Amino acid sequence: MNNLFERHRQTLEAAQKAAAERGYWSAYPEVPSGKIYGETAKDDGLAAYNAKLGKSFSLPAHPEESRVGAEVSPFGPALGITYPAARVETLISASQAAAQAWASAPPEQRVGICLEILARLNRASFEMANAVMHTTGQAFAMAFQAGGPHAQDRGLEAVAYAWMEMTRTPSQAVWTKPQGKAEPIVLEKRWRIVPRGIGLVIGCQTFPTWNSYPGLFASLATGNTVIVKPHPGAILPLAITVAVAREVLAEQGLPADVVLLAADTTGAEITRDLVTHPAVSIIDYTGSNAFGEWTRANAAGAQVYTEEAGANSIVISSTNDFAGMCNNIAFSLSLYSGQMCTAPQNIFVPRGGIVTEQGLKSYDEVAGGIASAIDSLLSDPARAAGVCGAIANPATLARVEAARGLGRVVRDSAPIAGAPGARTATPLVLAVDADDTDAHEEERFGPIAFVIAVGSADDGIRRAADLARSKGAITAALYETDRARIEAAAGDFAFAGVNLSVNLTGGIFVNQSAAFSDFHVTGGNPSGNASLTDAAFVANRFRVAMWRQPKT
Amino acid sequence: MNNLFERHRQTLEAAQKAAAERGYWSAYPEVPSGKIYGETAKDDGLAAYNAKLGKSFSLPAHPEESRVGAEVSPFGPALGITYPAARVETLISASQAAAQAWASAPPEQRVGICLEILARLNRASFEMANAVMHTTGQAFAMAFQAGGPHAQDRGLEAVAYAWMEMTRTPSQAVWTKPQGKAEPIVLEKRWRIVPRGIGLVIGCQTFPTWNSYPGLFASLATGNTVIVKPHPGAILPLAITVAVAREVLAEQGLPADVVLLAADTTGAEITRDLVTHPAVSIIDYTGSNAFGEWTRANAAGAQVYTEEAGANSIVISSTNDFAGMCNNIAFSLSLYSGQMCTAPQNIFVPRGGIVTEQGLKSYDEVAGGIASAIDSLLSDPARAAGVCGAIANPATLARVEAARGLGRVVRDSAPIAGAPGARTATPLVLAVDADDTDAHEEERFGPIAFVIAVGSADDGIRRAADLARSKGAITAALYETDRARIEAAAGDFAFAGVNLSVNLTGGIFVNQSAAFSDFHVTGGNPSGNASLTDAAFVANRFRVAMWRQPKT
Repeated sequence: MNNLFERHRQTLEAAQKAAAERGYWSAYPEVPSGKIYGETAKDDGLAAYNAKLGKSFSLPAHPEESRVGAEVSPFGPALGITYPAARVETLISASQAAAQAWASAPPEQRVGICLEILARLNRASFEMANAVMHTTGQAFAMAFQAGGPHAQDRGLEAVAYAWMEMTRTPSQAVWTKPQGKAEPIVLEKRWRIVPRGIGLVIGCQTFPTWNSYPGLFASLATGNTVIVKPHPGAILPLAITVAVAREVLAEQGLPADVVLLAADTTGAEITRDLVTHPAVSIIDYTGSNAFGEWTRANAAGAQVYTEEAGANSIVISSTNDFAGMCNNIAFSLSLYSGQMCTAPQNIFVPRGGIVTEQGLKSYDEVAGGIASAIDSLLSDPARAAGVCGAIANPATLARVEAARGLGRVVRDSAPIAGAPGARTATPLVLAVDADDTDAHEEERFGPIAFVIAVGSADDGIRRAADLARSKGAITAALYETDRARIEAAAGDFAFAGVNLSVNLTGGIFVNQSAAFSDFHVTGGNPSGNASLTDAAFVANRFRVAMWRQPKT
Repeated sequence: MNNLFERHRQTLEAAQKAAAERGYWSAYPEVPSGKIYGETAKDDGLAAYNAKLGKSFSLPAHPEESRVGAEVSPFGPALGITYPAARVETLISASQAAAQAWASAPPEQRVGICLEILARLNRASFEMANAVMHTTGQAFAMAFQAGGPHAQDRGLEAVAYAWMEMTRTPSQAVWTKPQGKAEPIVLEKRWRIVPRGIGLVIGCQTFPTWNSYPGLFASLATGNTVIVKPHPGAILPLAITVAVAREVLAEQGLPADVVLLAADTTGAEITRDLVTHPAVSIIDYTGSNAFGEWTRANAAGAQVYTEEAGANSIVISSTNDFAGMCNNIAFSLSLYSGQMCTAPQNIFVPRGGIVTEQGLKSYDEVAGGIASAIDSLLSDPARAAGVCGAIANPATLARVEAARGLGRVVRDSAPIAGAPGARTATPLVLAVDADDTDAHEEERFGPIAFVIAVGSADDGIRRAADLARSKGAITAALYETDRARIEAAAGDFAFAGVNLSVNLTGGIFVNQSAAFSDFHVTGGNPSGNASLTDAAFVANRFRVAMWRQPKT
């Protein structure tokens, strides 16, 4: 049995158990504490990050025909890092040259290597936090969690599912078919896992590791070689990932080119050439619906797993904790300035108001309550900077600017004083009527929210579910005090392919999706065709081939 | 718990166990014996079949705008049966109207209903045998087995996998996340199975039930409604299936339209309109590569599972039982006149001959040995009729005629005296050189085989594996006495996505694929993109949706 597999066997078994039971579990501590990661870990991570700035990123023996890289931190400075780059054909050839050795490695060995890569990525979490912070605009604490341990948990989850699927069929069996009074027919049969080929992972700018690790590790564990195509604005987190993977592969005597980096430049992206290459068998994509649709339509026979986008809704019917509700929603809208794929955009509120523990609250009081809660949450500039972070892409600021005209401004967006030099924007909250569908029925990525006046909560649920079905939605939230009405709404959202959070008022938010418990995206509406991570996400990344012969 | 589920629980559990262990198991006896099926079962089945001839097939309450049906038995007579037919929009609307009730039925109820349908189909096996025989041309014994119990086993296998996948995630869990010294966050979470929508099953003429049941039952068990589109030449077996399904559904108080028949006529097929309909979410297709490719390219967002076609190979390197090998190959070529998707077509034999227990056999002696074994197998006209059956499609006879010019005739094809009035043809065996690629490198469906002279067994293995990779192959066979060479070849065929049978000489044949043990088609080469039945075949036919709320 393989050394690395044995080293990490307990983690793998715990992950399998957690995925089956779906209670809380995590392999990698989310608290950026020196007690856990080592007293110097924070400083060491920052130093490791700083040491990369302005340099050539080192990927030993990686195909290299040129250097690319033009990342600029949303907090201000240019990173000045360059990465090895190569033509698509060069990358494909290198990937194919590494394929046979990787496909022939036993599943235990491949899984052991994946788990070792994750363990090393975990140890590099502080360096990764800085890399994620300065490419995505996430504040440090979030960059640590989402870019580090939470992403690693999602990677481990994919490895656990891959292991379960690969070991579901025995490697051998004896088949004995009775023949009445004659001797039975006895065959010995052997099965082996055969990978699909090359897996292409297309990363996004806002969550370069969290959204890429499931596809990366699912393809890798099942024996495929992987080409990682980062967003040109967020190369560093995936370059570090690829470097760690290549290091472990080489140590284990396997070709480092099993994992390749396909770095490119804005305006000269190689993504389309990779997607349409006939040698690419699997594509994991995170990004816009437009490019997602193009990818699904143009992939040359590859299986395509996507997380695209959608307009997420909150429906407010009634609550027993008006202040808690407003505070919870305020945080969900503010966190990372609404740049999470799980952030709410549309808040449906009955025109006639809602029932609360304080009596009826009018539509305006609800909209005002949320706006005030945001103001309160962000009143301290340092706290505001820690919650909102920075805006990853200048286009998002322009979108906020353009959105001001779409409704009555209940709360205006503004830069954050606590983050000088950074590109920032607090949430814009607009009041609109349900009939203003042009305003709210498309995804407006960033800190833009609509409080939408509807005839009733049921009307809001219907509209939210219909919107999820037609345009996509990853999350939905409901505030409702009646259990029967909650269950009815849960059915409506389920059939629209949306996961629903109900009556969140404390320290848990609709945006949050926990590995091993929450399936991220259902795959059942236009916000994505796959779920992170279920059996369907891994089971088709390999095939099972058999040979049989009469038993002698 | 559901009554039907409880009634069939033991069968389901045994099927799950068999699928996990992959030894021999079958739920439905393959022997057409009165002791098993009842002393009058054979006569009753024939009477039931005869009673349908020349009549309107009854599908109570099925959408009907016209009647179609022009089946003619390959054994001679026209069936004279008409079936209800309706426009695509009518069928889609009826399927959608039935969707909510079916999707809302608990998985136990749906699985119980599927198992009851299978149990009733099993009791109708003798009627089904006649229906399959007179639409496909299979001889009675084969029509009974492949059209009845073996198809039912494949259906049960799909139900068992669907059940395993649907119950993999718990329906509820409590998620408790520690918060240091503060109170933990506790959420209750509930998950439910959400189907994709409408499943379309496109049947073929030669194995109308065996190839359709996996997709039909996989989609049905996972909550999708199903539209069954039979081949215009083999409607009856699937019409009987649909009738049984609708009967059980109606008895259980569910809409019969959960399962619909989409009968049509040659030259006026509605298949393309069904494939391209945006309401169709899942397509299971069995048939030609050309229409398979069209379906994969033109399905409007549906997931497509295909079994297409390929050129299956045998490579002969050496044997310890020359006569047993020749007899085994002779039977594989003759069974149902080569009209099985698993039948071999290309037999690669070294130009310099092969080593046997009788010493070296030359290429000509090997070709002659196979030809003589066919002659011997088919020397008795009644036995020949029982092995070869009849030719399903007149085009196959024309193909045999045209193939005579493709090489040196080692054994000519001829009609079978024991089947007067039937459309019959025994195997044509042609000797060609490996370079005559135009002759053998495409699938020539029917009783056509090539004995191909190659430089060496390794050359044959390489050519057979390459052909599988480029054109597709469902089966491969190898005769080789050296274990190390067997294992090397097994690797070559595995990476070409072909299941391999080695040294078959007795009562088991490369054509045979047993449910619960042999995965039929790997999905890893152009002969099909899916496997019957693995987790990947069912896991993506439904999605899992969750709702969560703070635990109170």
